[in-house]
Amino acid sequence: MKHTISVLVENHPGVLARISGLFSARGFNIDSLAVGETEDPTVSRMTIVVEGDERTLEQVKKQLNKLIDVITVQDLTQKKFIDRELLLIKVEAATPKDRNDIIEIAESMGANIADLGAQSITVEVVGDTSKIDKLTELLKPFGVKEIVRTGKIAMTKDVKEPKEPKEEQ
Amino acid sequence: MKHTISVLVENHPGVLARISGLFSARGFNIDSLAVGETEDPTVSRMTIVVEGDERTLEQVKKQLNKLIDVITVQDLTQKKFIDRELLLIKVEAATPKDRNDIIEIAESMGANIADLGAQSITVEVVGDTSKIDKLTELLKPFGVKEIVRTGKIAMTKDVKEPKEPKEEQ
Repeated sequence: MKHTISVLVENHPGVLARISGLFSARGFNIDSLAVGETEDPTVSRMTIVVEGDERTLEQVKKQLNKLIDVITVQDLTQKKFIDRELLLIKVEAATPKDRNDIIEIAESMGANIADLGAQSITVEVVGDTSKIDKLTELLKPFGVKEIVRTGKIAMTKDVKEPKEPKEEQ
Repeated sequence: MKHTISVLVENHPGVLARISGLFSARGFNIDSLAVGETEDPTVSRMTIVVEGDERTLEQVKKQLNKLIDVITVQDLTQKKFIDRELLLIKVEAATPKDRNDIIEIAESMGANIADLGAQSITVEVVGDTSKIDKLTELLKPFGVKEIVRTGKIAMTKDVKEPKEPKEEQ
């Protein structure tokens, strides 16, 4: 089973090595990992997606909590959450027709053109895994030169809906 | 000086721990790190942003190249590249007025609403650091509940522009 774990850490050298070492020591392969700044510059948030059984993961979470640089550990798998990933995909686009087709596909998927070159186009898109996979499938026939993904980030959902409807404009 | 390094690695357990350990052993603090899948499921790409002097970083790159799981190491700092980051920001939004104001700010920045709740709104935005910092500044007055960032990903630019102008529709 896939688990999405959100870890708040002190922004010190070595903390990433210690945390990723903890997973690998138990044979967990990290599917994706994203580390970025938070509202506090001394603190970073790591979002880790791992595949593993409940019991071993429970032990890893306990050990994470024992690390001095770890502030909180949250297993989002048990909660309502949204997850998003960012993809950059560079595809071959040597003819005007290919370029137009690629731009049309990007627009239809709510994606943006990040770079338009003589031989290639780079498309950027944000979404959950299924949206990212779909865009990748649609662009594959043109010839993929390069793919870079951020790995997932996730956040708990606000469980209550707003009472008042949004004013229509 | 900040360096953006793109490392293609075999997707094996422990590779992340070894690579991040290599940086921390030399006192490099990793500003951000993103690991995601590529076009080949056995291969992952890590984008690492670190601050450090040229000479020490040169040594780290050499040592990265020696690691058995490392396929290629690219220092994008010396090239033309685009970089992008994804931000999720959850802000307080208990009144209809606040909700409308937040949605307006998001729209004006080309950002999307990822979650609309009774007490909070989560906004997602993609951009370079300056765009992400600007949206964060604009949303701060509402009260930031949570920020998650992916860390940067980067890709080299196609240096030549397309010859033919794109057909206008």
